[in-house]
Amino acid sequence: MLQDVLTTTQRLLKPYLRNFLIQRRTSVSKVNQWGDDVMDRLEGFAGQGKMLRGGLVIEAARMFGRETDEAVLAAGAAMELVHASLLIHDDIMDRDVLRRGQPTMWAQYQRLGETQGVDRSTDFGQAMAMCVGDLGFFMAVQLLSQTQDKAAAMVHVFGRELPPCCYAQMEDVALSLSTAEPSKEQILSVYKYKTARYTFSLPLAVGAILAGADEILVEQLENFGEQLGILFQIKDDELGLFGDEAEIGKPVGSDVIENKKTLLRYYLFTLANPSQRQELGLVFGHDLSVEQLDWVRELVRELGIDVLITTQVDELIAECQLLIDQLDVAAEHKQFFSQLVEYTINRSK
Amino acid sequence: MLQDVLTTTQRLLKPYLRNFLIQRRTSVSKVNQWGDDVMDRLEGFAGQGKMLRGGLVIEAARMFGRETDEAVLAAGAAMELVHASLLIHDDIMDRDVLRRGQPTMWAQYQRLGETQGVDRSTDFGQAMAMCVGDLGFFMAVQLLSQTQDKAAAMVHVFGRELPPCCYAQMEDVALSLSTAEPSKEQILSVYKYKTARYTFSLPLAVGAILAGADEILVEQLENFGEQLGILFQIKDDELGLFGDEAEIGKPVGSDVIENKKTLLRYYLFTLANPSQRQELGLVFGHDLSVEQLDWVRELVRELGIDVLITTQVDELIAECQLLIDQLDVAAEHKQFFSQLVEYTINRSK
Repeated sequence: MLQDVLTTTQRLLKPYLRNFLIQRRTSVSKVNQWGDDVMDRLEGFAGQGKMLRGGLVIEAARMFGRETDEAVLAAGAAMELVHASLLIHDDIMDRDVLRRGQPTMWAQYQRLGETQGVDRSTDFGQAMAMCVGDLGFFMAVQLLSQTQDKAAAMVHVFGRELPPCCYAQMEDVALSLSTAEPSKEQILSVYKYKTARYTFSLPLAVGAILAGADEILVEQLENFGEQLGILFQIKDDELGLFGDEAEIGKPVGSDVIENKKTLLRYYLFTLANPSQRQELGLVFGHDLSVEQLDWVRELVRELGIDVLITTQVDELIAECQLLIDQLDVAAEHKQFFSQLVEYTINRSK
Repeated sequence: MLQDVLTTTQRLLKPYLRNFLIQRRTSVSKVNQWGDDVMDRLEGFAGQGKMLRGGLVIEAARMFGRETDEAVLAAGAAMELVHASLLIHDDIMDRDVLRRGQPTMWAQYQRLGETQGVDRSTDFGQAMAMCVGDLGFFMAVQLLSQTQDKAAAMVHVFGRELPPCCYAQMEDVALSLSTAEPSKEQILSVYKYKTARYTFSLPLAVGAILAGADEILVEQLENFGEQLGILFQIKDDELGLFGDEAEIGKPVGSDVIENKKTLLRYYLFTLANPSQRQELGLVFGHDLSVEQLDWVRELVRELGIDVLITTQVDELIAECQLLIDQLDVAAEHKQFFSQLVEYTINRSK
């Protein structure tokens, strides 16, 4: 059933977003060459994701009685564009060069700059990609205006949920570049506000609001989305260390190289003995050999961190299930949410 | 009369924006420390400008019969936050360290990073400021949701006008870092879309739409705003080279140092003789001595560029006046627009 949702998303939302971007080309070509250029790149990037967030908008709307009309697709596409833009900016901040198996936006423009012989191609790439991200936010606003009768409600919920995402991103940046060790609470707060609420709570709320669901239900969905999103991020960390490079679309171990303050890393540094901790300090935040990657993986098992995390994952699953049980929705929808939990923990990308 | 508008703006919009940001603090402090931190910095930055754009929203609304109520203030504050965020991102791209007489946002965070001993304080500063800019956009969306009955119209006009601003910014970046010489048309296109439409056309349209003005009038205002904005940018270039550092709040000659592809620069490179052009090539894009700055200023006069630009300015003024005459508004409002033209060309900051 979840597969159906993702298939529907691919079938409806992908062409909708593509058409939206193509239509923009006609109006932007009068400005300068970059409009055309950026529409192609945005389509190549935003159109290639799983579209999980957009899919959740569509499914939540359908679940509460609104079919996939223009307004639902516009809100779903807005969700995907905001997501794409946050990733584009995130990749500049992290200096990541690979995402979804292709060069990140700033890396694409850096390359273009090199081809065109511009001064300082890295600065050029970063500046151009910063503009593309800003553009994505503004085009999302443009899409929200197409949600007709629900435009006011849409700007309200997007405007409420996205600012915390920025504070959490700031904390993430600060934790990444700080030499101080973060607490577990700080890490989980980033998971909640940077990932969970906007990946699950926001799209579920958007869909439900479009369908006219009442406030209490919307809040219940948001709470469920929060727990599910933390689960999602913990799984992301696992994939980042143990996943398959071809599937996850970026180098395995990049979190280690970037010294990302993940929960996995927290346990490693907390549970390691002094000599292991010293070694970890030399490994995290630097280029990583295959042997070092294997050593980190082995240490995760040796220190029982995999078991520790499995326990936490199980707790989160139970919490999600409890929240699903409490939802005032039909049994088939509860089943969908349960499948969503399963998908989150079993996915390979 | 224009002075009254700016005074009203200071009296009403400044406290409104401040209160909005302060109120956010209570809801953001639960996320992490950065919410508080960023509200202070945003208030210190967005609250210190001329608030010309927000003032135009208020005045245009009032002119067409809507008093300065909550919705008008929310739209004006949204306008100011978008403006602040675009400047914050722009300063990262240009590596500018001073704006409005104080350190730019990324420079503030770089300094904070140094104090806190983070790794790579420049990267830290840029990443944090990128987040602050994103946040400003999202808070602007939040404010638009407070425009009540006009929220849909607001997202429509913001969503239509801001994307071209991004393409123009991309062109500006590309022109700045490219070794090719831009055409006059390319430069004027950047002026139109990067500055003019969002500084004048957008706020005037926003105010008029809030007051329920008809489409034809809104379009007339936008066309007037476009010409006025180009005038504004040409004046900005002049201030950048001949202005008073204390008044303009940034180093005189920074456009030269950054090799900004201004109209002034275009004429310099086009009209200079080969040896002057060679010298210009050595001066633009590098640190600037007082002697070099004086030489550039002198060359502007020697080559008659000041006269040339005055002629263009006069043409634009005539064009603006023609558009004002055609506006279907009361005589006192026409007088306001004429004053706005005068202010634009006579301002010292």
